[in-house]
This record gives sequence, structure tokens and C-alpha cells, in this order.
Amino acid sequence: MLHESIFPHTFLQILEYKSQNVSTADVFFPSSSFFFPSSDLLPAMDGDTKTMTFLQEVVDILLAYIVESFDRETKVIDFHYPNELLQMNNWELQDEPATLDDILISCRATLKYAIKTAHPRYFNQLSTGLDMVGLAADWLTSTANTNMFTYEVAPVFVLLEYVSLKKMREIIGWPDGRGDGIFSPGGAISNMYAMLLARFKMFPEVKEKGMSSVPRLVAFTSEHSHFSIKKGAAALGIGTESVICIKADERGDLETYCNNNTTGALRAALGFVLVQGFVPFFVSATAGTTVYGAFDPLIAISDICKKYNIWMHVDGAWGGSLLMSRRHRWKLDGVERANSVTWNPHKMMSVPLQCSALLVREEGLMQNCNQMHACYLFQQDKHYDLSYDTGDKALQCGRHVDIFKLWLMWRAKGTIGFEAQIDKCLELSEYLYNKIKDREGYEMVFDGKPQHTNVCFWYLPPGIRYMEDKEEKKKHLHKVAPVIKARMMEYGTTMVSYQPQGDKVNFFRMVISNPAATFQDIDFLIEEIERLGQDL
Amino acid sequence: MLHESIFPHTFLQILEYKSQNVSTADVFFPSSSFFFPSSDLLPAMDGDTKTMTFLQEVVDILLAYIVESFDRETKVIDFHYPNELLQMNNWELQDEPATLDDILISCRATLKYAIKTAHPRYFNQLSTGLDMVGLAADWLTSTANTNMFTYEVAPVFVLLEYVSLKKMREIIGWPDGRGDGIFSPGGAISNMYAMLLARFKMFPEVKEKGMSSVPRLVAFTSEHSHFSIKKGAAALGIGTESVICIKADERGDLETYCNNNTTGALRAALGFVLVQGFVPFFVSATAGTTVYGAFDPLIAISDICKKYNIWMHVDGAWGGSLLMSRRHRWKLDGVERANSVTWNPHKMMSVPLQCSALLVREEGLMQNCNQMHACYLFQQDKHYDLSYDTGDKALQCGRHVDIFKLWLMWRAKGTIGFEAQIDKCLELSEYLYNKIKDREGYEMVFDGKPQHTNVCFWYLPPGIRYMEDKEEKKKHLHKVAPVIKARMMEYGTTMVSYQPQGDKVNFFRMVISNPAATFQDIDFLIEEIERLGQDL
Repeated sequence: MLHESIFPHTFLQILEYKSQNVSTADVFFPSSSFFFPSSDLLPAMDGDTKTMTFLQEVVDILLAYIVESFDRETKVIDFHYPNELLQMNNWELQDEPATLDDILISCRATLKYAIKTAHPRYFNQLSTGLDMVGLAADWLTSTANTNMFTYEVAPVFVLLEYVSLKKMREIIGWPDGRGDGIFSPGGAISNMYAMLLARFKMFPEVKEKGMSSVPRLVAFTSEHSHFSIKKGAAALGIGTESVICIKADERGDLETYCNNNTTGALRAALGFVLVQGFVPFFVSATAGTTVYGAFDPLIAISDICKKYNIWMHVDGAWGGSLLMSRRHRWKLDGVERANSVTWNPHKMMSVPLQCSALLVREEGLMQNCNQMHACYLFQQDKHYDLSYDTGDKALQCGRHVDIFKLWLMWRAKGTIGFEAQIDKCLELSEYLYNKIKDREGYEMVFDGKPQHTNVCFWYLPPGIRYMEDKEEKKKHLHKVAPVIKARMMEYGTTMVSYQPQGDKVNFFRMVISNPAATFQDIDFLIEEIERLGQDL
Repeated sequence: MLHESIFPHTFLQILEYKSQNVSTADVFFPSSSFFFPSSDLLPAMDGDTKTMTFLQEVVDILLAYIVESFDRETKVIDFHYPNELLQMNNWELQDEPATLDDILISCRATLKYAIKTAHPRYFNQLSTGLDMVGLAADWLTSTANTNMFTYEVAPVFVLLEYVSLKKMREIIGWPDGRGDGIFSPGGAISNMYAMLLARFKMFPEVKEKGMSSVPRLVAFTSEHSHFSIKKGAAALGIGTESVICIKADERGDLETYCNNNTTGALRAALGFVLVQGFVPFFVSATAGTTVYGAFDPLIAISDICKKYNIWMHVDGAWGGSLLMSRRHRWKLDGVERANSVTWNPHKMMSVPLQCSALLVREEGLMQNCNQMHACYLFQQDKHYDLSYDTGDKALQCGRHVDIFKLWLMWRAKGTIGFEAQIDKCLELSEYLYNKIKDREGYEMVFDGKPQHTNVCFWYLPPGIRYMEDKEEKKKHLHKVAPVIKARMMEYGTTMVSYQPQGDKVNFFRMVISNPAATFQDIDFLIEEIERLGQDL
């Protein structure tokens, strides 16, 4: 049978190996028989068969990797220090071509040392998991290999972006889903767009004349907000000192301050800025802070923004997806009053990286703010409706197609599928919270049930659990999470993040966005932390 | 045989259909038998087989599309107007999940109406073609689904970025490949990085204090430069009016002006700016302009930049790849004197979209300029060498893995393979130039052999070829290219760009970066322009 000779390792064989407990690593590391060079592939004359054989071989490697990634018996990571890893393979670029056999070996080696981000016990980032329909969509996107700047070169993708942005605006609650938006390369850039639009809305002359034509502008955000707000301010020439970070309460949100009309920290900061003759132009409320997962009170903030005529942005990069959940969307009540919203489907909705949207309430503003009328791209005498040439409203020229994976996943799951997935992650985090809140050796970083899936806690090994000297205890505790994390990576069993925050020493920040995780994986995490940390 | 039952349409069958002249469209549009929902796929219990079957089905669709894309008998585009296309499929997002059968139908429909950017007769953009190793690498990248911010989550990719950037800097000519750099989401963002670095280098206080702390800054570039220079200036708060566009000569470069020490337009503009008390901080020389493919004289410009202590950036997004060619790299002589260089491997090197690098001569500057020390991501007490956590030097937080496709292609071709590919594209453009420069009905937009693969020309249909009234002739001629282009798209036979430039009416800009193109495809293009335009 022709199949057999051409595909020595099909995925069905992988499954057989799996059932026989043969490591696929042993199966996948023999040298193959692709001694021909890549110049034999398409577009080479009669390159069809060789191309298909080669691509199928790569796909077999990927399929094996996928199956392994979901297998709890597999390591999340085969960790090596940078200098070791540099020695473990020949990664250098050469003048001469390699054979396709070498290319397959490189693919296997790359995956061998990669992090299995789909693994049910990978909790390290806000973006975890691997959705199979999303993956298929990303493979199709690569194959279509086009660019979002015009309808001419990306007709379907431009329409799907239009359809999806409209749907997201409907979910936010803007009438008939009207407004504008764009998919950008990540939440930091989406937030930067928002700041750029806010400035332009207030002072359109800034586009031509720069910051020297406008008064000193000041932005406001929570001290727990994402660093991209300051990064954006630095880039846009506003300066990090003009970003005022409002003190959050113990749970990481601005609740206490904003709801108190006389002493609210945001109001006070605004007053202070106005007295100095500066111009408040932008408030970025956070819906789901990075570390605590806290939600700022959007209604209270919107009242303040309205009163002072300030652009209200909601950074929902992490928490925006809760809008898909009937059970949890109340946490974003008031989001419909925002002027702009960042929402990253690549986080809580598990869309493959990257997929970040900026949604804007006012139509036409992005275009006016960013357009430069490049005549080689946005010809005005084209034969189709030019409103679909959306490229000139972007900061980028070429723009990667990030929409198809979201659209296809949405199609496959329906809104209710996303909702179920999100609700499940929140249930898992509640399970974790309930499990450790009174458990010996654990201390929660903030009181009460987390609003998002962020569970922040210290693990105190027996040796320091009853230390009396508080400073000494703190000093020791600070070192615990980094050591446990390093051990996790060396054993390769799980990965979870840690960090200090303000005067709080290093604590674990457990986040759950991985649809593969189960209650058992949460149990495992706790056991593993205790196993790896008990001697510290 | 199990294979047969599970894969009704394997790629070998596609090849058989092809040899029997059966349209794969007919084969690939029957309804499949995936009536189960995506929730049956991994991570569902025992989801392995269903997942693999589904992904293999998607791969078969993609493989069929790839083979079709390289087939000259296939249309480049199956064009429909936006409103038509919106009606042709159900693109709306629903609350309920679809079956995987519907997902496969959506994949097929998306590809049916996509532009075949790999097609040998697709010349529409600076990024054309589809490299099979690059594609394989992009599929692997999607499967690995990780993020460039830390070594922790992308160990191999971070190392490959390090290796590749170093190699690119060596090719630029910086001693031992020292310096810095980053892969960014496109040339526009790379150029914006350069401007940001130039400003920070001169006035580091701008990061904290914003533009109000610095004098008025002025940037210089050619009137033929890419619009992203102005877009960047608008975003960074410098303002488009502070970008002075230097008049280029008839061939689109700054040669005449820069080499004349007393009257050079750049020097004159600099003098004018200095007299007004403004601060020149940035010159962006273009290596390969977008429309004409012209190369600014880098040595002359570097002399000026050195004298006035101005950051010299080279926007080689389009032309930078000529550094890989021993025959053509002289066009970038002096690039090693630049402070920063934009170089997009996704253009002339045909790496799948997106892959753009900014290379920087000074080490450490990017980090100082952009870092915000987010403690949840860049913990200082990790157990490995932190210099590999490169995320804080980026404007983005999460950053897509763009390196693997370049690295794997480089591996597969070697430097000499890229060189051969680039040289061939330049040969094809010379062939086109020689073919039409004296051909009846053609007029070249600028005299002499193009420096890059851009061949800019008017086609004059017989009806207007001998018009005496020059204004009338111009008016007619302006309409010719758009009509021919619209017809190309409606027939779907080829795609090439057109635009006006300054006082020059619409002309064709033929660019060749597609490794699939041959001399016969150039002949075809000319015949097609004449066929579609003769009645105009």
C-alpha cells in the first residue's frame, strides 16, 4: 500500500505506539529519508509529490506533539539552561542548504525543548491551552499567507473581522454593535491605540503638530494596571510621569476610592492635576488586573470620566472575556459606557496567540487618527466599496490575519461554548481557593473569593511556618516561590507564575485559562507545591 | 486498510484527481461525516482519534489548496464584491455550536474566496509566494503556541531569535554581529521603534517627562519613503509636520541632492531647521522605496548624519534583503554606518507573513528605552540567565513567534539559497524591463534599469496612444490601469498593483518577490495587460 511506504509514522501508528507504551520520542527521532533539498519542493517542476510528502511528515510530527501535550504523563517542559540548550543542537545558520531530513530533525528538536503550552498542568501565563479548531484555523491562516490591509488581498478575512468586531461590540452593549475596532498584535498595542485615540479626540492637531501643540496631558490608571499603559505613554511622548497610578484597595481594585465622592483617590488626583493646569485626557480602568484579577468599578469611573469629559478606556485584555458569561459579566457592568475596550480572545478564550481586539465606540475616529492615504495601497479609484480597505486606520502597514482562528472557534463552540469554557475555569479557581484558604501552610494574599481565576497565595514550608521573627520569616518566604518554581521546571511537572507585589514578598499567582485543566490537576498542583517545597 | 476508511481524500488521491483532470473543488466540496461537535476533540477524554482525524481532514484541504495555488490553470482570485461575498456564505456568529462538518465547509469556503498568494502570477504586493519550509515552520509555530516574552516560555525560539538577529547584523557589517534587535509586527512598527530609539538616545528624559521636556524634534526622509515614517511621527507625538520630506530625483532616490555638498536638499533642509532652533534627530534613508524600488545613497547620508550627530535609520523593509546577494548588495553600501536598520524577510525573502526585524547597532538601548520592569513577568530571582528574557525591550507585552519560519527556511536554503532566489527575482524584473522599454504602447515611469524588482510603467492602449492633446491623453491614461486591474481581478488571471505618484497619473508597479514566477509568467503578464486593455 502506497500510504505505508510514504508515511512511515502516521498518526494512527502514533496512537498504536501510545497504547503499547512505546515512547513516541523513540519513534520520532530516527533519521528519515528526506535527503533531497528544499529546492525540490514546490514551486519546483513536479514538486507536488515531494511537497506533500514533506508537509505530511511535518504534520505527523505535529500530531504526535499534540497528543503528547495533552498527556499528563508527559513533562510540561524539558528544561535546560540557555547555554546548555545552545550546545544541544546545531542552531547556527549556514551558507549551505541542509537536506529536508535535517529540517525534520530541527522540527523535532525544537518541539522537544518547547514548553507544552497545551498541557493540562501548564498554568504559567494568562494564555494557556491549545484549541484544536483554533489550531486548524491558524494552519489555514498560514497557508492563505495574506495581509489585512485591503479587501483586495484578504476579502474573506476582512469580512470576518467586520462580522466579529461587530459581534464583540454587541456583547459590550453598544447599540446595534455600532462603532469601530481592530485586531492588533497584543493587548499592549491595543491599549496604546486607545491612548492615541483619546489624545486625538481631544486635540486632533496633535497628529500634524505633535505634543508641542498641546497642553500637558495626564492619564490615570490603577497601580495594579498593566505596565503597557506606562509603556504606551512613554512611546507616545506623553511620558510615564504623566500616568498617575491610583492606589488600589487590598483586593487590588479601585472600589473604595471611586465610590467615595469626597475622598475618592481618582477624584482627588484629578483635582490635583486640574489645579496645576494640566489636562486629564485618559482613564484606563482595568477589568481583570494581571496579578490579582481585580475588576475596577466601571460605573463609578464612567461617572467621573463623564463629568470631566475624559476618555474612558477599559483594559479588559484579561477580564474582557467574562462578557461572554451570563454568570460573570456583571463584573464588567458599565463597560458599555467606555469609549474603548481592549479584549484579548487569546487569553481567557484560548484562541491561539495572538488575538487581541481594540473596540472603539466612535466610528471614523481611528481612520482620521491614523490614516496617511498611501496611494500605492489605498487607491481611491478601485472598483469595490473602499470602506472595506481598513488598513489605513492601523498603526501597522502590513497586518497579520488574527481573525480567522477566533471566528472559526466561535463558529465551532458558539457563544455558549465559550461561556461554558470560561465558567469552568472560574469554577476551577474557586475550587482551588476553597481548597487552600484554610489549609495548613497556606496564606491568601488578599481576602475573599477572587473575582477572576487569579488565586494568589503563599505556601509556607513547615520550617518557616512558625517562625516568630516576622522580618526573618518574610525574608525566607520571599525565596520559597522562586525555588519551588525552579524545581517545577527542572522536574517538568507543572508551571505556575510567582511575583512580589508592592510590599508583599514573592507569592504564587495561579491563573486558569487552560480548558484542559481539571479538578485533579488543581489537586496535583497543590501536592506538587508541597512535595517540592516541604524542605525549604 | 484503516487509512483508506479514515482519510477519504488523502493528498495522493488529490494528485490522482489532478492527473485525471478532475477538479479538486468537486472532490472537496461534498459534505463530510464530521457531525460531532468540537467538544469531542482534545482535551476531551479519548479525544485523540477524533482530533487527529479532524486535523488530518483540515490538512488535506490545505494540501489541495497548496497544489492548486501553484497551478497556472487555476485562478489567482475568485473575485466577488463585498456585499456579494457577505451573501455567499453564512459568516455570522451564532450562539449555538456548529458541527465539525460545518467547520470544514467554512474552511473550504474561506479558501475558495481567498487570494492565492502563492500563485506564480500573483504580483500584487511586496510579499508574494509561499515557501513550503516556511509554511511548515509556521504550522509548527502555531502548534507550539507560545509567546516571545521570556526564555521560560519560549526557550528555543528565544535562542533562535538571538542566533538569527546576530547573523543579520553580521550581514549588515557590524563587527562580530554585535548590537541588538527585535522581530516586530511589520516594517511600520520596526520603523517606529527606530524613531523611538533615536529620540530616547538624544533625550533619555523623554521616557518619563514626555515631549514637553524636549525641544521641537525634526525627522527627515525622502518624499518617496514609506508612509510609516509619518505615521510613526504622528503616534510618537512628534507630529507629521516635523517630518521633512526631501525631494527625490526622477528615479526616486536622493542621489543628486545628497552628493552635492553645497546645495544638497537634505543639507539645506537641515540648515533651515537648525536656524529655527529645532533639533534634527532622525534621518530615515530608504533602501528600496515602495513604488520605484530606489535606494538612497547611504554613504552620503551617513556623512551628513555623522556631522550633525543625527540618528541614521535605514528603512530596508523592502530592499534590505539585497544584502544577501553578492551581486546586488552594493546598493546598500554604507548600511553598516546606520544606527538602525529595518529588514523584512517576509518581503523579498518570501518568509510567511509576518517577519520583520529591526536591527540596532547600540546594545542595551532598546532595553533602557522600553523597559518597565513588570515584576509578574520579568522576575529578577529566576534560576536562569535573565539576559534571555527579552520581552521588556519590546513595545508589545506578548509577542508572536515570528522567528521560526525565517530560521527554518534559512536552514533549508542556506544563505546561498536566499541569494539565488533574490538574484532570480531581479533577473526576472530586468527581463520585464528589457521587454517593455522599447515596446510599442509602453512608457517607463523613470529612465534606466530599476535598482530593485520594481518596474513602473504605463500601458497606452491603441486608442489613446497617439492622442495629441497632452492633458486629454493624461486624463484617459489615468483611468487605464484601474480598469485593467479590475478586469484582471474579475477574470482572476493575475494581479499587479498600480498607483499615481506626485504629478504622474496611474501607472503599473510590477514587483517580483514570488519565487514561483518564471520568464513565461512575465510574458503572460504583458499579454494579459494588452488583452484586457486594448479596447480602452
